[in-house]
Amino acid sequence: MKILLDAMGGDNAPAAVLQGAEQANREFGQGMTIALLGPEQTIRQVAAELSIDLAPFEIIDCPEVITMEDDPVKAVRQKTGSSMIKGLTLLKKGEGDAFVSAGSTGALHVATSLIVRTLKGIKRPALAAQIPTVRQPFLLLDCGANAECRADMINTFGTMGSVYARQVMGRADPAVMLVNNGTEDHKGTPLYREAHQRLQANPSIRFAGNIEPRDLLLGQADVVVCDGFVGNVILKLTEGVASTLLRMLKPIFLKNLLTKLAYLAIKGGLGDLKKMMDSEEVGGAPLLGAARPVIKAHGSSKAKGIKNAIRQARLCVENDLCGTMQKALDETLAAAGEG
Amino acid sequence: MKILLDAMGGDNAPAAVLQGAEQANREFGQGMTIALLGPEQTIRQVAAELSIDLAPFEIIDCPEVITMEDDPVKAVRQKTGSSMIKGLTLLKKGEGDAFVSAGSTGALHVATSLIVRTLKGIKRPALAAQIPTVRQPFLLLDCGANAECRADMINTFGTMGSVYARQVMGRADPAVMLVNNGTEDHKGTPLYREAHQRLQANPSIRFAGNIEPRDLLLGQADVVVCDGFVGNVILKLTEGVASTLLRMLKPIFLKNLLTKLAYLAIKGGLGDLKKMMDSEEVGGAPLLGAARPVIKAHGSSKAKGIKNAIRQARLCVENDLCGTMQKALDETLAAAGEG
Repeated sequence: MKILLDAMGGDNAPAAVLQGAEQANREFGQGMTIALLGPEQTIRQVAAELSIDLAPFEIIDCPEVITMEDDPVKAVRQKTGSSMIKGLTLLKKGEGDAFVSAGSTGALHVATSLIVRTLKGIKRPALAAQIPTVRQPFLLLDCGANAECRADMINTFGTMGSVYARQVMGRADPAVMLVNNGTEDHKGTPLYREAHQRLQANPSIRFAGNIEPRDLLLGQADVVVCDGFVGNVILKLTEGVASTLLRMLKPIFLKNLLTKLAYLAIKGGLGDLKKMMDSEEVGGAPLLGAARPVIKAHGSSKAKGIKNAIRQARLCVENDLCGTMQKALDETLAAAGEG
Repeated sequence: MKILLDAMGGDNAPAAVLQGAEQANREFGQGMTIALLGPEQTIRQVAAELSIDLAPFEIIDCPEVITMEDDPVKAVRQKTGSSMIKGLTLLKKGEGDAFVSAGSTGALHVATSLIVRTLKGIKRPALAAQIPTVRQPFLLLDCGANAECRADMINTFGTMGSVYARQVMGRADPAVMLVNNGTEDHKGTPLYREAHQRLQANPSIRFAGNIEPRDLLLGQADVVVCDGFVGNVILKLTEGVASTLLRMLKPIFLKNLLTKLAYLAIKGGLGDLKKMMDSEEVGGAPLLGAARPVIKAHGSSKAKGIKNAIRQARLCVENDLCGTMQKALDETLAAAGEG
């Protein structure tokens, strides 16, 4: 198995990417080659500085780099020598089994659609992220790749999310829920009412009804679906509220000597809480519906985030995510009379 | 000035409502009469139990009660003797200057639309709630009264929110922002792109552009507008994430004697944080666009929440909220060629 890794993607590239690759190779590298894509000279230089042994890795020289400022569509056409475009092209050709990048989400989404293409029945991949809860994380999709959605798209999100939860997150019988402004079946806008009906009739999933935003972090759902505009709000607002609150704890502890001592006493517990809310822990966001596995690591990923994204990519390949997903999608679409 | 108060609305009615009314009357009762609406016998009995002197209050006997289970539209027609319907009818007739209720949001919204009616240019009132931030609260609308919105509605939310921020929240030159999945002008769905353009051309407000959900709690905005489905997600998810996180702090402090001592040291600071995130502190949610002031207090309001909602109602009347809002709406609609 070969995992193609964009060495130049993300805020901390290439150092964090190389460190993550090294950790992944050490911890679960058996039967897997990691190919590092980027300017070979830069990779060798940074690896030398970090004392990383490059012997276990394949290096694929990519002289160009896509930045956050690049227009995604133009970049696909013009920056064919970049790590992202070259990686996705190799993935398409079968010269690699999965692609991992912490680069621009927009560019990765567009380039994946145009180069790797999508499964039958899916027009554009959905971005799925794992959101931490008091129990276990749930998979949220679409997180913003498709700001406007039709009800049949939200229904396929249910199927794709369910397959990912089973094949990669290890959930035996995942509960799929629909974000809505009430738990009753008839709640929501016409779009959400229709999505509810389609999900209820979907034979490929266990649909557990609507979930209100207030209850999301209680962790009853394995997969939560909604349109990409709402999904983006949920993803970003959860991050925003959690980080604001945790930041607001700081001055409380800095007040005086007693509170500073108090901080020492509960430091470990607070660390666990921060860890729980940490997107690094849960790893990357898969682009579900792509014809082959593509994982978007968080832009601010450190070594751990990259390592966990590589682990997810490995599981996608091992458990035939895309093949299983195509079968489930065929079933979903046939049942909806659209197969 | 007469404030009509639904004594039977909310989870803690009538006790919390009567206590809130007593506090309001004591703290800022001058020049204001509070009329208590509910079954007179119940009001007198509960007041006696709580040793509340009813002499300063008017009591309007309303034998019927609307419950959360009642269908809002049916309740308006059938439960004309209830505190909510009678209160709104008196408001419409001018026999009171504002109505405050902690009862069912759905019933209050429907009954307000049908009985009190709306300002010219507004079809259905919007629910506006104050959301706490690290600085000062902002007003969010629509919070769910209108799950489906057109761009021109989102534009009038900007005007109405701006007037409320000025007249009631004391913001001299309120910044209105639009929730969106990016700060650039062209971001979002067609609905949000059109809303952005309309807000930018709106002469009645100071539009400060898009705001991403991640940044909402940083407090740059005075008024934040969006459709009611998204607003409901923001309101409920913020509450959910904050309460989940604060609840998760508890076991950290209960771990051992040292952590329990730590809790004592930072208890005051944590209390301030909880207070900041407390919807009771900021009071009720106005139904903006109603022809006369209607304030929805939180369903779980205790005395303080009721008191603060009465204070808001008083400010609405004193500062001629509805008259000022009609003038601003006329200006907004004229500029948009819809006046």
